[in-house]
Amino acid sequence: MGNDKIIHDAEYYLLYEQNKDSWDKEDKEIESRLEECQKKKGARPNIIHIMWDDMAFGDIGIPEMAAIRGFEAPNIERMAKEGILFTRMCTEPACTPSRVAAITGRHPIRNGMGKVDWPLSFGGLSGEEVTTAEVLSQAGYSTAFYSKWHMGDIEESYPHNQGFDETLFAPYNQVSAIWNSIADGVNACIGFDPEMRQKDPYLKDTTALLPEGWIQCIEGKKGEQGREWGDLSNETYEKIDLEGEKRLIDFVRRNAKEKKPFFVTYWPLMLNLMTKPVKKETLQGGMVAEGLKRLDGFIGQLMDELKSLGIADNTLIVAMADNGPMIHNPPPGMGLADTVFRGGKGDFTEGGIRVPAFAWWPGMIEPGQIVNDMIHETDLFATFARLGGAEEYMPTDRVIDGLDQTSLLLNGDTHGRRDYLFVYSGDTLGATTKGRFKRHWVGAGEGAGTGTAAAFYDLILDPREMSPLLVPMIHFSAQFERMRMRHEKWMEMYPNRPKARGIPFTGISNARPETKAIAERLEELRKELPFDPFEYIDIERYFELAKLGSVD
Amino acid sequence: MGNDKIIHDAEYYLLYEQNKDSWDKEDKEIESRLEECQKKKGARPNIIHIMWDDMAFGDIGIPEMAAIRGFEAPNIERMAKEGILFTRMCTEPACTPSRVAAITGRHPIRNGMGKVDWPLSFGGLSGEEVTTAEVLSQAGYSTAFYSKWHMGDIEESYPHNQGFDETLFAPYNQVSAIWNSIADGVNACIGFDPEMRQKDPYLKDTTALLPEGWIQCIEGKKGEQGREWGDLSNETYEKIDLEGEKRLIDFVRRNAKEKKPFFVTYWPLMLNLMTKPVKKETLQGGMVAEGLKRLDGFIGQLMDELKSLGIADNTLIVAMADNGPMIHNPPPGMGLADTVFRGGKGDFTEGGIRVPAFAWWPGMIEPGQIVNDMIHETDLFATFARLGGAEEYMPTDRVIDGLDQTSLLLNGDTHGRRDYLFVYSGDTLGATTKGRFKRHWVGAGEGAGTGTAAAFYDLILDPREMSPLLVPMIHFSAQFERMRMRHEKWMEMYPNRPKARGIPFTGISNARPETKAIAERLEELRKELPFDPFEYIDIERYFELAKLGSVD
Repeated sequence: MGNDKIIHDAEYYLLYEQNKDSWDKEDKEIESRLEECQKKKGARPNIIHIMWDDMAFGDIGIPEMAAIRGFEAPNIERMAKEGILFTRMCTEPACTPSRVAAITGRHPIRNGMGKVDWPLSFGGLSGEEVTTAEVLSQAGYSTAFYSKWHMGDIEESYPHNQGFDETLFAPYNQVSAIWNSIADGVNACIGFDPEMRQKDPYLKDTTALLPEGWIQCIEGKKGEQGREWGDLSNETYEKIDLEGEKRLIDFVRRNAKEKKPFFVTYWPLMLNLMTKPVKKETLQGGMVAEGLKRLDGFIGQLMDELKSLGIADNTLIVAMADNGPMIHNPPPGMGLADTVFRGGKGDFTEGGIRVPAFAWWPGMIEPGQIVNDMIHETDLFATFARLGGAEEYMPTDRVIDGLDQTSLLLNGDTHGRRDYLFVYSGDTLGATTKGRFKRHWVGAGEGAGTGTAAAFYDLILDPREMSPLLVPMIHFSAQFERMRMRHEKWMEMYPNRPKARGIPFTGISNARPETKAIAERLEELRKELPFDPFEYIDIERYFELAKLGSVD
Repeated sequence: MGNDKIIHDAEYYLLYEQNKDSWDKEDKEIESRLEECQKKKGARPNIIHIMWDDMAFGDIGIPEMAAIRGFEAPNIERMAKEGILFTRMCTEPACTPSRVAAITGRHPIRNGMGKVDWPLSFGGLSGEEVTTAEVLSQAGYSTAFYSKWHMGDIEESYPHNQGFDETLFAPYNQVSAIWNSIADGVNACIGFDPEMRQKDPYLKDTTALLPEGWIQCIEGKKGEQGREWGDLSNETYEKIDLEGEKRLIDFVRRNAKEKKPFFVTYWPLMLNLMTKPVKKETLQGGMVAEGLKRLDGFIGQLMDELKSLGIADNTLIVAMADNGPMIHNPPPGMGLADTVFRGGKGDFTEGGIRVPAFAWWPGMIEPGQIVNDMIHETDLFATFARLGGAEEYMPTDRVIDGLDQTSLLLNGDTHGRRDYLFVYSGDTLGATTKGRFKRHWVGAGEGAGTGTAAAFYDLILDPREMSPLLVPMIHFSAQFERMRMRHEKWMEMYPNRPKARGIPFTGISNARPETKAIAERLEELRKELPFDPFEYIDIERYFELAKLGSVD
């Protein structure tokens, strides 16, 4: 079943060997169900992926917890009641790597995208990476991307150059909101807004710090140049999601009318940060809660729209957060906290990587399910490809970390295909999980591995990873060492690739002079400098390629 | 409405002044509903209070959390579905004070019972305290107590001397299980089991340490002497709950037959600690989870029994934990962890005092409610008295901290009567809560009250009390000071009383020689010692009485 040429991580083959009889049988049944659905509806299922920023597991979808946290998401609760609430949806621990994992099916360590991308990064997701949009496009899907891309500022990284037919996207994160002059008061004191910036007579280098010429939002179509949409203002920032939602509904209607299967990625931008004080509508009053209230309304509208178009029973929505709450060094007023799991954005503890997540597909997914299997966002890549009949277009020259979890969606709790996870924070392997046990690789006392110095946790007994346990460590420690060795040996066979590097914001038809000046200034400096600034920005890639033997 | 002679804490009068119109109106409606119910059923409602040890909010009753914590309580989940799940039921932070608060309606600081009672304590709950059982007895209720009393080892403290008609009770906590020779391995190494005890040639005083003559379980009837039931063995320990449950069902049947209203307190004993290794039945495998599985079955049996007796619609069950999870210095294998709220047993953070809690009364309590109002276990005293038509028997010479929360039970979310709490740990006022805000009084940086040194928390934004907040502190700090001043001034007018002290285990008709020897040995020593050992054990009370002006 499936595409047996796909290279999984080494660990998966152990699982498959022990479960192949039941999994092959399940897969055959699934194939008939999908064929039956396709026959009835005349097309492969539509897929919508919604992913917002920075939220702790439990903060939404569970009414008891909603009461404690002081904000409600009635439509997302409806998704849970009509579909699946995942208790163990895992992500990478920060924005950029999480998006890369979801869209490529690969841990970002494998493509140099393990760290959060900031302006001006002169780099991004490599064109060599294969996205869900590319795979599904080949299988005949219409594809669209809206809002927060956050995977690079170079031309090859733009979503319309990564497989999406239609896009309206922010190449970075909530930059203008973070730099705004109002927020909830504190950014005003800091004064990063360009309008407020003082002169600094001690700074001699105008190419460094406070970059100019960056772009807040781009719209683009596959095969065409992009266009800057709006400007750098907060007014533009506030409109990006709203415009994206309008276009999303229009995109859905057009494809429904043409009976063409579609894939939409909507990763909203404005949840975390507001650009001006607003009258609070939630009991909590935190900025994420206030933003989610708006998004929740849109999700309700979307579900209703799909029903009224008659395609709800042929459309899968997966809605989730991209990582844990931003509890470390957050802008003020966000209202985020870790609760059930310890840690937040950036951490390899469960608080950083276990997120609220929901799946909805009326008629195909049984309503009211709580699914406690481990699932990782890379699995969405493989699962969406399977559902779209596009497995043959998945690349077979690299490790795909994502596993096909169609069985988990359609057969529910315990029918998942994953019981392990390698948890990276940046380029560091922070932990490895197998079933209920988790081994931290990084931290004090690594050598001892016993007593309080051990970092060996039972996630059921100790969801917050507070008290390392001796007894399971005795039995499983060596096995975890072997898991890691397998994972790293396999990495030698299928080596990691570097982040793409280049000149930012090429391929923009209406590029402003300031935007063009980013490269022009470096061109001028190049003539005078004892090194090549373009070569320099690419030097990381150069070394990586040399290491791989691609250059000499 | 109600008994306006009851002395509440000062804070309550502020609330009443601002809400009296709506509360008086609600109370009139409630009175008619209760009268109508009584007319229909021919009796005041029956009341059953079930309270087990040491569990974090969220661990049971919420299926999503049950999945994460690896154990299910289907009958308790059914209670929630058919009744109320409280998100903010607060208790005192440890066993003895929690039980005292629930049964007297008073914070244990007021009666010297703020600390956990251990063998041989030579003391307990004073006969001057008035319990729910005494109040309801006067209103014509049959009353019974089963299992873990843990409020003293002296005659006046026994539950059959504190208002209960029928009792089978452990005067201490899970002593024999803690001292057992097996447990999950570790107590065996420590060897506290008397059979395993080595001789200690350096110990000269046989009256100190490892006391003998204590009693594990007593049965008693109001007006009669008690009897030791069973012995000190683990076998007896394991039978106490089972025997109690058998007697409880019999008691319910008898009273149903006689159409007599009844009040049952069942505080099971054996949840926390097991006396021998058992085959695990829950995914989690922790001792509390394994014990709760058994209790959950009994709760299901009880609900079914009430229905088949035709009295379910005239019976209120309140089921809850007595304090947060025992995460500090626990016996091994308990499987407890704090999750949503920080801290556990003994702590004044929410993790120590906010517990899983449920109310069930078919026909009177609306099904499927999540109730987010603050409620404290002392409120059960006042509420049960109100429901039993027994308010006139509540004492009027002392502060009753408990508030009548009948409106919360019958009218649901937001209809509670409490928005404040004084949180004690032992005799220390640890914190004061008002609405969503909580002021810690104890801890580093108390004087500064700002920045990281402040201890001023927003429980909605920050359920785990991790990040003190400056802004609300500015606005509310002085108000919290006044709340505390009012509370303490009021305490001067209605002074705290001491714990009762005395010779343990008098009033036992079948007392063993070892039990009698506790007093006899002291009698002998008294002749030789330069101080009176009996006076000494009472000296705390002596000083307290002197301070109150009762002695000179």
